Amino acid sequence: MGVVIRGGRVFTAVDEYVGDIRIEGEKIVAIGEVTSEAGDQIIDAAGCYIFPGGIDTHTHFDLDAGTTRTADDFESGTRAAIAGGTTTILDYATQNKGETLKQALFGQHRKADEKCYCDYGFHMGITDWNDEVSKEMQDMVDEGVSSFKLYLAYKGKLQVDDGVIYEALKRSVEVGGLIGFHCENGDVIDRLIKIAKKNGKLAPVYHALTRPSALEAEAVERVMNLASFAKAPVYIVHLSTKHGLLNLIEGKNRGVEVYGETCPQYLLLDESLYGTDDGSFEGAKYVMSPPLRSHEDQEALWEGLKTGSILTTGTDHCSFNQKGQKEIGIGDFTKIPNGGPGVEHRMELLYSFGVLKGRIDMKQYVALTSTNAAKLFGLFPQKGEIAVGSDGDLVILDPTQSHIIESKKQVQNVDYTPYEGFEVKSKIRQVFLRGKLVFDNSNVISDGPQGKYLKRGICPGR
Amino acid sequence: MGVVIRGGRVFTAVDEYVGDIRIEGEKIVAIGEVTSEAGDQIIDAAGCYIFPGGIDTHTHFDLDAGTTRTADDFESGTRAAIAGGTTTILDYATQNKGETLKQALFGQHRKADEKCYCDYGFHMGITDWNDEVSKEMQDMVDEGVSSFKLYLAYKGKLQVDDGVIYEALKRSVEVGGLIGFHCENGDVIDRLIKIAKKNGKLAPVYHALTRPSALEAEAVERVMNLASFAKAPVYIVHLSTKHGLLNLIEGKNRGVEVYGETCPQYLLLDESLYGTDDGSFEGAKYVMSPPLRSHEDQEALWEGLKTGSILTTGTDHCSFNQKGQKEIGIGDFTKIPNGGPGVEHRMELLYSFGVLKGRIDMKQYVALTSTNAAKLFGLFPQKGEIAVGSDGDLVILDPTQSHIIESKKQVQNVDYTPYEGFEVKSKIRQVFLRGKLVFDNSNVISDGPQGKYLKRGICPGR
Amino acid sequence: MGVVIRGGRVFTAVDEYVGDIRIEGEKIVAIGEVTSEAGDQIIDAAGCYIFPGGIDTHTHFDLDAGTTRTADDFESGTRAAIAGGTTTILDYATQNKGETLKQALFGQHRKADEKCYCDYGFHMGITDWNDEVSKEMQDMVDEGVSSFKLYLAYKGKLQVDDGVIYEALKRSVEVGGLIGFHCENGDVIDRLIKIAKKNGKLAPVYHALTRPSALEAEAVERVMNLASFAKAPVYIVHLSTKHGLLNLIEGKNRGVEVYGETCPQYLLLDESLYGTDDGSFEGAKYVMSPPLRSHEDQEALWEGLKTGSILTTGTDHCSFNQKGQKEIGIGDFTKIPNGGPGVEHRMELLYSFGVLKGRIDMKQYVALTSTNAAKLFGLFPQKGEIAVGSDGDLVILDPTQSHIIESKKQVQNVDYTPYEGFEVKSKIRQVFLRGKLVFDNSNVISDGPQGKYLKRGICPGR
Amino acid sequence: MGVVIRGGRVFTAVDEYVGDIRIEGEKIVAIGEVTSEAGDQIIDAAGCYIFPGGIDTHTHFDLDAGTTRTADDFESGTRAAIAGGTTTILDYATQNKGETLKQALFGQHRKADEKCYCDYGFHMGITDWNDEVSKEMQDMVDEGVSSFKLYLAYKGKLQVDDGVIYEALKRSVEVGGLIGFHCENGDVIDRLIKIAKKNGKLAPVYHALTRPSALEAEAVERVMNLASFAKAPVYIVHLSTKHGLLNLIEGKNRGVEVYGETCPQYLLLDESLYGTDDGSFEGAKYVMSPPLRSHEDQEALWEGLKTGSILTTGTDHCSFNQKGQKEIGIGDFTKIPNGGPGVEHRMELLYSFGVLKGRIDMKQYVALTSTNAAKLFGLFPQKGEIAVGSDGDLVILDPTQSHIIESKKQVQNVDYTPYEGFEVKSKIRQVFLRGKLVFDNSNVISDGPQGKYLKRGICPGR
Repeated sequence: MGVVIRGGRVFTAVDEYVGDIRIEGEKIVAIGEVTSEAGDQIIDAAGCYIFPGGIDTHTHFDLDAGTTRTADDFESGTRAAIAGGTTTILDYATQNKGETLKQALFGQHRKADEKCYCDYGFHMGITDWNDEVSKEMQDMVDEGVSSFKLYLAYKGKLQVDDGVIYEALKRSVEVGGLIGFHCENGDVIDRLIKIAKKNGKLAPVYHALTRPSALEAEAVERVMNLASFAKAPVYIVHLSTKHGLLNLIEGKNRGVEVYGETCPQYLLLDESLYGTDDGSFEGAKYVMSPPLRSHEDQEALWEGLKTGSILTTGTDHCSFNQKGQKEIGIGDFTKIPNGGPGVEHRMELLYSFGVLKGRIDMKQYVALTSTNAAKLFGLFPQKGEIAVGSDGDLVILDPTQSHIIESKKQVQNVDYTPYEGFEVKSKIRQVFLRGKLVFDNSNVISDGPQGKYLKRGICPGR
Repeated sequence: MGVVIRGGRVFTAVDEYVGDIRIEGEKIVAIGEVTSEAGDQIIDAAGCYIFPGGIDTHTHFDLDAGTTRTADDFESGTRAAIAGGTTTILDYATQNKGETLKQALFGQHRKADEKCYCDYGFHMGITDWNDEVSKEMQDMVDEGVSSFKLYLAYKGKLQVDDGVIYEALKRSVEVGGLIGFHCENGDVIDRLIKIAKKNGKLAPVYHALTRPSALEAEAVERVMNLASFAKAPVYIVHLSTKHGLLNLIEGKNRGVEVYGETCPQYLLLDESLYGTDDGSFEGAKYVMSPPLRSHEDQEALWEGLKTGSILTTGTDHCSFNQKGQKEIGIGDFTKIPNGGPGVEHRMELLYSFGVLKGRIDMKQYVALTSTNAAKLFGLFPQKGEIAVGSDGDLVILDPTQSHIIESKKQVQNVDYTPYEGFEVKSKIRQVFLRGKLVFDNSNVISDGPQGKYLKRGICPGR
Repeated sequence: MGVVIRGGRVFTAVDEYVGDIRIEGEKIVAIGEVTSEAGDQIIDAAGCYIFPGGIDTHTHFDLDAGTTRTADDFESGTRAAIAGGTTTILDYATQNKGETLKQALFGQHRKADEKCYCDYGFHMGITDWNDEVSKEMQDMVDEGVSSFKLYLAYKGKLQVDDGVIYEALKRSVEVGGLIGFHCENGDVIDRLIKIAKKNGKLAPVYHALTRPSALEAEAVERVMNLASFAKAPVYIVHLSTKHGLLNLIEGKNRGVEVYGETCPQYLLLDESLYGTDDGSFEGAKYVMSPPLRSHEDQEALWEGLKTGSILTTGTDHCSFNQKGQKEIGIGDFTKIPNGGPGVEHRMELLYSFGVLKGRIDMKQYVALTSTNAAKLFGLFPQKGEIAVGSDGDLVILDPTQSHIIESKKQVQNVDYTPYEGFEVKSKIRQVFLRGKLVFDNSNVISDGPQGKYLKRGICPGR
Repeated sequence: MGVVIRGGRVFTAVDEYVGDIRIEGEKIVAIGEVTSEAGDQIIDAAGCYIFPGGIDTHTHFDLDAGTTRTADDFESGTRAAIAGGTTTILDYATQNKGETLKQALFGQHRKADEKCYCDYGFHMGITDWNDEVSKEMQDMVDEGVSSFKLYLAYKGKLQVDDGVIYEALKRSVEVGGLIGFHCENGDVIDRLIKIAKKNGKLAPVYHALTRPSALEAEAVERVMNLASFAKAPVYIVHLSTKHGLLNLIEGKNRGVEVYGETCPQYLLLDESLYGTDDGSFEGAKYVMSPPLRSHEDQEALWEGLKTGSILTTGTDHCSFNQKGQKEIGIGDFTKIPNGGPGVEHRMELLYSFGVLKGRIDMKQYVALTSTNAAKLFGLFPQKGEIAVGSDGDLVILDPTQSHIIESKKQVQNVDYTPYEGFEVKSKIRQVFLRGKLVFDNSNVISDGPQGKYLKRGICPGR
């Protein structure tokens, strides 16, 4: 009694063939000409594409942003993930000042337990470094949290200094962990914001103008220099600029072990959306850090995906309703909650604007949306692959359909989407999570949350 | 009635799992839990490694070197290939002056027809450029010969000038072909040789001393500059130096579409083997172009394989007996026939000195010995892959065995091997060619040559 | 009895001050507050600029171009030089095939002897390399000809192969000489010309289109690679492209001892002057090799002068009358004699369009028009400097005057100038050659040719 | 009534000739064949070298180091300078926390007024940034203090954050000032020191081990990135590492306007002088920041001087007696006062170990010890040049003498010298300061302090 998916065009990060896939229990057990047995659930996938369920490397569900809490919690967030063909999310637990990492992890588990519709793992954001935290990095890895995050921005809040970065990097090598970095120079941004405010520059657009590209590039360079000194690998989260990417490439060329992630918003949206200082507050929808950039940056990031300089794609999903939440920042851009939604649309946006526009091919698509993340974050070959023994996490996509992204139809629990009106030339027909059909016929199949916590192996895995 | 290989540890360029493989006719039809039928040939591979048959990107069988003919023809050469786990070879047809490409190809087919024990394809070496040859490049691609070769060395013989390189590169883009380049500056080498001879420097070691590393590096740079001007991809054959590799990497970084190949001899043997000018002729065994290099070059090339700067491995197999053939050059190194044997030992050398020494992992091994070559030269996914629909070209390797390379036991038809006495920690147990067992129990199974000519797709394929 | 120039603003490559200069015999003997003696010639230079006489590093006077001879010989050419503030020219002797260097030098002396109005030296162009020529390089240096030239262009005529380049470079180090290179890839140009002619592309503009920028860049790179191998310094003559300049800079950065020269035409004129294939022959005036380039190239070359990547300026003066000479190439651009006039206008063009446009300052102007050349070519501090002991070669320029360049008023003996109509904001008032007033009040003071042959020291001097 | 120096061999940054120099009042008025008048002071300099008085770009006289005050004040320090051929020093005023720049400058003037034997100027160290300080940068430039300093090291004390650096750089462009940077990453050093202390590593050698090279290199890179963002020039003080230098060169190559300074101690002394953790306190003599480095670093810095990547040399003279002062740090290297003496020996060390060892030539020597500093710091052509109108600051050096550096014979007021026992192959015979003989026959000629405060022009000057 298994599942047999018949006749689809199967894509992995390297292969393309027409064949059947048989899943028993949670695992793929056979590929190719597969015999079915009595009691098997048979899915006819002829004419459809089959690829591994997506892995979103970067979400923030149920996050307390100080003045408000994200619109999406783990339930709505992971339902949206499933609806969008993403079967695994990696969310950020973040240490509060004065807290241990274990406390932070415990709190995160409490938020996610019994709520998730897709599988999930955690990265651990470190904001309050001390000897105890250093010891706990090993505990985290033992708990399957083998990736961490440090912030070079958010001065006075999340930001850590270069000394902490150095010690944490040294420690990461000892425990087999990988640290991701939010790369923007918080010291300089802090100055630019003060200058802006002093000059009465308070509209949403100044969010972008006080976080210029050069400050991402500087931070990327600095992280690589410290990584090189500490002989540690590093991961750059949500890379948004050409300049930062060129630095990353140059770092790789001189031997730094550096990995890059970007997000659909940096590929598809640009800074013009912030509008001008004309009284409109529409730009607040796009207030996120780093901010949207220029068209030239977008092109460079696509090229980075194509050539393998950037390996993974996350959404940095961190949703706030425009009404009532983003509006906290009317009259003061620094009070606008930072972030936007995305987990639901990443897979189809990258297919439609990446593959169909000829920027990447189908194998690269699979690699960039799933396989590379699985490898890097200690989940391969369980996740990110269609092979014997891998989890039965599969997306069946109908390439002949198309539809328009509309916030009113979305599963994620937020009152807008930055991709409103984007035409997506495909339709996700079915999604399997560990062999179980969890999305079908435009609906998340609800007999409750099926997602499991993923205890990940050491990072960077291969 | 098929073949079922049960319970081996399967390796591809990306995967590793324990599973069965079923082949029907010539193709892999199922992977994983596979049911067998009456009449199936069942192979128990428990405890063994299974990976795609090797692709040797660079051989010269049955080559007329002017004063003598290679020791190996297509029969002995491809038997040796099979014995060494290589199921596909790409041999060089070479246009003689005054000849058309079609004549050269016809001649090459005549040498190979009905003689090959493994599958084979051809590259076409162009030495006499003219308008007709330019037109014929399309014919070659139509015949499945989608890769070409030009020589920057061998002044007055094979060498072409930069104008020819430019025109051929422009043409290669039109026809969907890829040109490989022998990168050594023939003009300067010609001078160095004349100076050496004038000074009575005639021992084998002067072969190496008149072909210094800088001249490979210069030629790599020049080819890339011309490629960049012609907007064409290029392939560098038998890369032998760190300097050349660094140039290649720098070229890739600035956007040149350049691919690199190296050979086991440049990874495992070094220039000390040429000895000194002491009357010995032993060094003649290693007279090949480019010559063996330094230990530092070896290390750089291994690093190039590991990091993906070099994608493929060929042997440049071009064997001459030390006795009677190499000896033509006693007293004048310029008369020593250039080349050495290698097709039989590439797969096990790279496994033993690459994988087991920790320089590359098993997936990289598969990529570097087979998958990458298949992709680049228009053979993927027919060759180089274990997937539904791919050819049943498989190697079953027993990792618990070991043996010593000895010329007296080898299949290739030559009186020495440069790897004499090398201990190889593994044993190729069986080899399948398109589903047929062709090597078993240390023997090539002989009911005649089974190899087919491979009409390849356009290059560079992906 | 000397010359005292009083009260001018003196500029050297490093200094600027108001002071007197006293010359006795041919040498400067005192600077600053200078007392005059009875019999002294006193020049009042108040309000004027005084700087070292110019050195034109690149002229071709009295050159036999096969179908015709240059319009200017050493007499008219050096009179024009003096009129333009140039007191030293370095002209090219060029070996004919079959000739020794001594024969070539002897021939050149014969052309120049007793004809020159300014001082002069020779570079030696080598076109027919052999052991005897190699030996003669020492003789040349002994004769004061310490710089040489090799051509990478003009296939089948002046072009030498890489083997010759290598041997000559090795030899140059032994003799203390510097080789200049005409950097264009002649092999590829030869192909492009053949293709153009085959397609009936015969107008002057095709001269430029068959000599694209990438081919200069390639040749610069190749020369530097060979120089690096031979451990020799190299000089790139008439650099015309941004791409070539960037390569040169990159070469310097990696340690190649490479020097660059450019010419006013590459700084001030652009490829639009070739017009289109519309039957006009006006573009023939600008047919020179390398050809005029784009505006972007001009800007890069100015930047190269400013930042010191390019050290010297020559004119490549090689004049042919449009009428009767350039016209030989009507209907076939390959027959148009290559070259144009320039020696008369270099100093004032660089002042007016360099200094006055703010691209370089006065000290850089002195360095680029005179001092650097003197240092590089073994003439410093005799030439190129205003210091005690240096030759009394001085230009007195009135910065308050201005005039229009017109061919009908020029001294050089040719029926056009590429700079016709250019407004020059300055006037050369007087020129001294070794303490003797040779140009005054718009006239070359003629009591016959006063120029001496300069036996130069080894190159590159400092 | 002037001074006439007769017959010396005169060296400037570009020239070398034998000639006389006449000074009237404070200025050079004539060079070359100079007539003397009644009452002139005539100096016979035949056989001697004459060059511009040295400019030491980096001293700390009369500095309060918290637990103790430097051994040298402006009187003993500038007497030592004169004795060593240095006629100008640029000392650091440093703002205390809570202080205005004017207060800091006033305090510095008070320390120096009427005490100095050589001319002097100030840089201003900024440690407490605010809007008032920003405004005062203009006041400083108006006062002739056109160069500033920021510290990336000394966390919690002098160190400023990247936001301050950015604002100060932007401001420096507005006022025409140049900021020098102490480039070591203070955050990471702070961590390394804490770790060392926690592990009981307290000997002098740990001073060096907690300030590794990579942290200078990182800081250089960061400063250049911020400079590039702010479009400002930057000056790197006391560059000590090869890695930092390579970064600087790379920065220049990509267009950052960056200037470098190094010190004799980084050229001539190495880290072996710190000894081991064996109870000795001798290493304390060399405790300075940055610390002494490796032999490889020394070689790179010499090469940097030779090739012009480093333009200036200072001593970072900051002397403490070993007895009683350095000893404060016995048992805790962090308490050792940082710094060492040097102002007295810079000129002769660079001559003896630079020029005489063939690492730089005499003209480079003049440039590196004097001319470049004058140009960069707004003193040219008043200082750093031998030309009409320049100050009569001259050194007469006898190249035939030699002597041994001994602390017991030194003028500087400190109980050791790091160069004890160095043999210097030359002797400074006489020194002139603005036309006045101030050092003669091994003695500072004392009719009281003659040094004047130098109100400098904007920086970077040219």
